[in-house]
Amino acid sequence: MKKESLPVRSYKGTRDFYPRDMCYRNWYFSKVREIVESFGYEEYHTPLLESYDMYAAKSGDEVANEQLYLFEDKGGRKVAIRPEMTPSVARLVAARLDELNFPLRWYSIANFMRYEKPQKGRLREHWQVNVDIFGADEIDAELEIISIIKDIMEAFRADPEMFKIKINNRKFFNDVLVDILDVKTEDIKKISRVVDKKAKMDPEKYNDWLKEIGLSKEKIDLLDKIFSSNFADIVQMMHIDSKGARELYELFRLLNETGLEDYYEFDFSIVRGFDYYTGTVFEVYDTSPGNRRSLFGGGRYDNLVSLYKEKNITGIGFGLGDVTFQHFLEGHDLIPKTIYASPAVLITRFLEVPVNEYIHCAKQLRSENIRTAVYFSGNDKLGQQLKFAEKKGFSIALILGIDELKENKITIKHLDSKTQVTVDRNEYIDKVKEFLNSGLK
Amino acid sequence: MKKESLPVRSYKGTRDFYPRDMCYRNWYFSKVREIVESFGYEEYHTPLLESYDMYAAKSGDEVANEQLYLFEDKGGRKVAIRPEMTPSVARLVAARLDELNFPLRWYSIANFMRYEKPQKGRLREHWQVNVDIFGADEIDAELEIISIIKDIMEAFRADPEMFKIKINNRKFFNDVLVDILDVKTEDIKKISRVVDKKAKMDPEKYNDWLKEIGLSKEKIDLLDKIFSSNFADIVQMMHIDSKGARELYELFRLLNETGLEDYYEFDFSIVRGFDYYTGTVFEVYDTSPGNRRSLFGGGRYDNLVSLYKEKNITGIGFGLGDVTFQHFLEGHDLIPKTIYASPAVLITRFLEVPVNEYIHCAKQLRSENIRTAVYFSGNDKLGQQLKFAEKKGFSIALILGIDELKENKITIKHLDSKTQVTVDRNEYIDKVKEFLNSGLK
Repeated sequence: MKKESLPVRSYKGTRDFYPRDMCYRNWYFSKVREIVESFGYEEYHTPLLESYDMYAAKSGDEVANEQLYLFEDKGGRKVAIRPEMTPSVARLVAARLDELNFPLRWYSIANFMRYEKPQKGRLREHWQVNVDIFGADEIDAELEIISIIKDIMEAFRADPEMFKIKINNRKFFNDVLVDILDVKTEDIKKISRVVDKKAKMDPEKYNDWLKEIGLSKEKIDLLDKIFSSNFADIVQMMHIDSKGARELYELFRLLNETGLEDYYEFDFSIVRGFDYYTGTVFEVYDTSPGNRRSLFGGGRYDNLVSLYKEKNITGIGFGLGDVTFQHFLEGHDLIPKTIYASPAVLITRFLEVPVNEYIHCAKQLRSENIRTAVYFSGNDKLGQQLKFAEKKGFSIALILGIDELKENKITIKHLDSKTQVTVDRNEYIDKVKEFLNSGLK
Repeated sequence: MKKESLPVRSYKGTRDFYPRDMCYRNWYFSKVREIVESFGYEEYHTPLLESYDMYAAKSGDEVANEQLYLFEDKGGRKVAIRPEMTPSVARLVAARLDELNFPLRWYSIANFMRYEKPQKGRLREHWQVNVDIFGADEIDAELEIISIIKDIMEAFRADPEMFKIKINNRKFFNDVLVDILDVKTEDIKKISRVVDKKAKMDPEKYNDWLKEIGLSKEKIDLLDKIFSSNFADIVQMMHIDSKGARELYELFRLLNETGLEDYYEFDFSIVRGFDYYTGTVFEVYDTSPGNRRSLFGGGRYDNLVSLYKEKNITGIGFGLGDVTFQHFLEGHDLIPKTIYASPAVLITRFLEVPVNEYIHCAKQLRSENIRTAVYFSGNDKLGQQLKFAEKKGFSIALILGIDELKENKITIKHLDSKTQVTVDRNEYIDKVKEFLNSGLK
């Protein structure tokens, strides 16, 4: 009777990373890591599970209520798989307020889970780089964060035409709603949620939602006008002195002064989904229309640490997700073929030769930083062993049979070019290096 | 009214990794990664959640029933947070049986969760390196796996006296139970579970459990005698030709031939907790009595891939957990202080100088691979800025005030030695490098 097999597919909305996928992922993360570390950022990491209270307390409603992987552990604790990093890192900061020397420049690379409907650019498990500054009130912190984004994009050889950093400010957004649109303070949050979804939403549904909140036809039109206005025009429509407007003005001045004017634009529709943002907010978009989700998203949040300790430490930072960013790199053909590196040397194997001869060669090559594997089965014919080496993408096969052993020689076969030489045992390492560096693969 | 604060502690049995902790972790993983990659191993990764069926089907009972973080997702799927890697990697192998070129040399670094009672060396979330070979039946695969362990230990400067690789074989274990102790086949699994826990167990409880399974006093004594016997003596007590014995014999021969005789010993009490092992099993132990949990554990499993596809692909590998291994390195004082690297240069800041001057210097230094941060607040006095630099562990502070700017100069302060020089702008990078390379910290 045939037994029933388990399914080989991964859990819905998640990915298996095979070695080729990991080559990409390691390349991608190490490039980002290099940039943020060059700015003096230090890495941290947090546990996979957090108490549910953390998310109930802040985050946007959608994440807390609909998308959270929430369950009770065997001890009856209500816990959740982290859906994002910001509340966790705020907890770490709060826990050591007195020991940490502020400002902090911190980053992390971690996976997150949200119960989403899997679709292009959106999965249930994704990986994200989080970069944050804690304890710096100055707009210079905003400048640094935007500069890092630009440097990351540059490290991947992205041109300024391929992406745009879109910037807004939550205080400014709120002031505009209250001052120009006469919106009641208690409705701001609802409107910002609708605006956050605007780009992904049917225009009619968007209008209906705003009407439901109580916005008249005239106000919805006025809001549309504001969306298409530039920063200076909106400021001119205002009757109050907006702190948010001043922050934006100062940030734009710094960005222009430091040569970043081509990388960003003001966009009043950027509000970010999470409730915790309190100042600058930004998202980075692929300019090609096929990739519509933001690559980076972030902003300034003033009150997260105060959930844990009676002290207000301001934070600003961004998250960079792996899924849309991979679409970006693929779409603009920015992934070099060379990242899919293979092991360098396969040592073929014959039973007549003591295994230690092979182990010894492998050791020597590894000590020269040459990745080396020994073929397992001495029973297989040489042709079979060489075929395996080629399929696996090894650059070189070493052949040490009983004849070579007697003469104290080794044969080196360069697999791509089919070049083959036999040299003395004391010369083979140099010859292997020569082949590897020859520009031949 | 005072609002209630959220607790800052991490979820029970998990750790927050602050930057200093991550320095250690990155150092530790990168060393392991370097060794396994030098052997030609390729990295893979799997999703956090797996279908519960996977664990119900195999694993040891304890993990499947008591320790699993198991819940239903919002779509009613029974899922679990991975408690170990082996079933997941077997799923990946099974999913691409026809495309993969066997044998595979694969590794991963990932976190796992088990509902444990937190105690020394055992947490609910831990990180583990998994190294596996798929599709190699030869004992040479065992030799390679043991060699990798030895090379990893050597990379951490561990002496052979500090650890011991303890080896047994499940087939041999079963044969001995049946042949010498006349145990019924159906009782083998129960006995091996008790033996697996022997070291951590009260001796009386151990005897009681064996009695419950049906072992007489004489047989328990005989089993004790076997535990203290060497391999050759046990083989002499046997009446059958044991395949497991031949495998062990061949492995010991290869280990001795390749110079590993000081690193391992035969230990009949090593059986491993998981049911899926079918041949060689091993664990690596710290020789100092304070650290009693195994550092590495692994073995050969023949039937895991066949849970998914009607094909038998043999696997052999090990897991290396981070918690006990850190105790090992700490206990033997093998963690160098130098791993706790700090950013190199802090550029101090004055409001009279255009910010772009600072940004420009930072860019120049970063392009020379020197980690550089710019102080955020131009309002702070120089003394305050230098104090911050010292506390954070920066090596060098750059001072570029309005006077330096006018004269086109920069002051470089070496913080540890308090040495300070003022040089021309076109010379400062060389001077910074000189300070950083001077052997002064």
